[in-house]
Amino acid sequence: MIIREKEPANLEMPFGQLAGFFTPNDQFYIRAHFPVPEIDPASWRLRLEGEVREARVWSLEDLRKLPATTVPATLECAGNSRVFLVPKVKGTQWELGAVGNAEWTGVSLGEVLRVTGLKEGALEVVLEGADSGAISDPPKPAGKIHYARSVPLGKALEGVLLAYEMNGEPLTPAHGFPLRAVVPGWYGMAAVKWLQRIVVTDRPYNGYYQTVDYAFWQRDAAGVHLVPITEMQVKAAIARPGVNEVIAAGTSYKVTGAAWTAEAEIVKVELSTDGGSSWQTASLGKEKARNSWRLWEYDWSVPPAPGRRVLLARATDSRGRAQPMERDPDRGSYEINHCLPIEVEIR
Amino acid sequence: MIIREKEPANLEMPFGQLAGFFTPNDQFYIRAHFPVPEIDPASWRLRLEGEVREARVWSLEDLRKLPATTVPATLECAGNSRVFLVPKVKGTQWELGAVGNAEWTGVSLGEVLRVTGLKEGALEVVLEGADSGAISDPPKPAGKIHYARSVPLGKALEGVLLAYEMNGEPLTPAHGFPLRAVVPGWYGMAAVKWLQRIVVTDRPYNGYYQTVDYAFWQRDAAGVHLVPITEMQVKAAIARPGVNEVIAAGTSYKVTGAAWTAEAEIVKVELSTDGGSSWQTASLGKEKARNSWRLWEYDWSVPPAPGRRVLLARATDSRGRAQPMERDPDRGSYEINHCLPIEVEIR
Repeated sequence: MIIREKEPANLEMPFGQLAGFFTPNDQFYIRAHFPVPEIDPASWRLRLEGEVREARVWSLEDLRKLPATTVPATLECAGNSRVFLVPKVKGTQWELGAVGNAEWTGVSLGEVLRVTGLKEGALEVVLEGADSGAISDPPKPAGKIHYARSVPLGKALEGVLLAYEMNGEPLTPAHGFPLRAVVPGWYGMAAVKWLQRIVVTDRPYNGYYQTVDYAFWQRDAAGVHLVPITEMQVKAAIARPGVNEVIAAGTSYKVTGAAWTAEAEIVKVELSTDGGSSWQTASLGKEKARNSWRLWEYDWSVPPAPGRRVLLARATDSRGRAQPMERDPDRGSYEINHCLPIEVEIR
Repeated sequence: MIIREKEPANLEMPFGQLAGFFTPNDQFYIRAHFPVPEIDPASWRLRLEGEVREARVWSLEDLRKLPATTVPATLECAGNSRVFLVPKVKGTQWELGAVGNAEWTGVSLGEVLRVTGLKEGALEVVLEGADSGAISDPPKPAGKIHYARSVPLGKALEGVLLAYEMNGEPLTPAHGFPLRAVVPGWYGMAAVKWLQRIVVTDRPYNGYYQTVDYAFWQRDAAGVHLVPITEMQVKAAIARPGVNEVIAAGTSYKVTGAAWTAEAEIVKVELSTDGGSSWQTASLGKEKARNSWRLWEYDWSVPPAPGRRVLLARATDSRGRAQPMERDPDRGSYEINHCLPIEVEIR
């Protein structure tokens, strides 16, 4: 793993190691804002409160008694590929590997909410982690805050898993033991780890991690305003070759990678080996699942002449969304899904 | 006027000059984020759009044909008294005079909305000024934005004036000519100047000036989250003496000032001349109006012994709210209404 920050640990998968549809747990990227909280599973409880019929406390055993589901889902950090932004922007300088695909097992948040019972005014559901700390740059709250994120009620009832297993194994501490959220189709910031409290609110929740952080500026009829980052944007990433890789002239080279989107299927991945002048269609892998990535590959006939070449991959999904060639500056330091140049040397 | 920033002009009234219930227009503080826009009143139009029956454009003449109302209201800059914060915080270093009381004449926003007609989903009303510019510090939108602020629909229907006159005179360019909002009871940031567009939205508007700026961190059952600054907090300010004023020992000195609050009356102003150890009741001025300040005075028998003294004023309103002695750190650099020390020298 590539260390992007030592403490709290922020680790990236070297994306060139992409080898299968599911990412092994020990290769799955780790994004943390605060140190890993120490949690004793026996005394750990999940509090469910706010606009519910009656506030309720769940043990791990209580949750395991509810029907379990297993859901494959790709998680991508909303800041993945930030190192490609020029000029450089603030934030962890992820390259390509702050993304992974896993099978998550747990209980659906909707089930937990239905069992508990909601009040009429329920509007959003705040997922709060046990991890906490102070923010350094303004605008910032005073003192410590917990990592927290909300989802609209509709999404909470349908599209959120409270997961206790990852690829068939209990979560590790770094991945949110004993319980984390997984919001398939959304960037990783919604997948709150170390869940300790779920609050149903009757008004919009403008938490730090969906306003000052993990939000972007939307321009529409109302003007310019902050919108929380939610769905992953369509994106293809090249796993091999890597930047500055030396490739033998006149040979055949298998270019590989993965492509993903939200609430749709990847229907096409194109590859350019000449900086975007021409595009060829890549072959898509057989394994697929909604909100999981799709592997792809392309057999490149490497030209005989030596020199430098820029490779670009471009995905299109079943909702007709294709990756943009240019960066949208209103996206700030997030949702980096324009076609990313991988420069190689033919020798 | 005290210059706090030259361009755009940010001017403060020297608060020691407080002399009457209404602040003369040329002494009324000026807060601007961008340069004053040049507006030709003949071609100027107010666009009203969004969740309305039909988008509509208003000329100044159209608006003047609607019933006019005159409303007295105190406007205080949400950052007034920031210079008292230790350690120093970012932002314009206002002392006491970023506040004033005026009579505003115009048409009620509610009237304009009713004449236009609203759609069912109407939730908030965005007031957009013609002033615009780029933000320098992140988190910030790319490019230029207009100054804008929203009010919830209920407030828009009842409590907002679209003013074209200030103390019986047409607005000056610096005060928002030809049309500005006045939101009685709310801090000045809601009183959008140079209005050019009003958008009725069907979802919460998280504009720059109510999230990154002009917002504070609220701690409640949902956790810590951003809330736009709205109502003025109860506050008494000492106009005379000023900081470091030299006062003759053994004489009588008339301490004066003003006190204000939102949607309530000032019922008590207390003064301490010994740094908060003991408090005496000040006399309240006769003139009063909802959401306007109340003048107050106190005849201080200055002690015969020389030395330094700290004066403090503390207001209480009819809703039982009194000024706090300590600063709430979650208010950041706004809503500075704790009792402010005015240190003087008795000689």
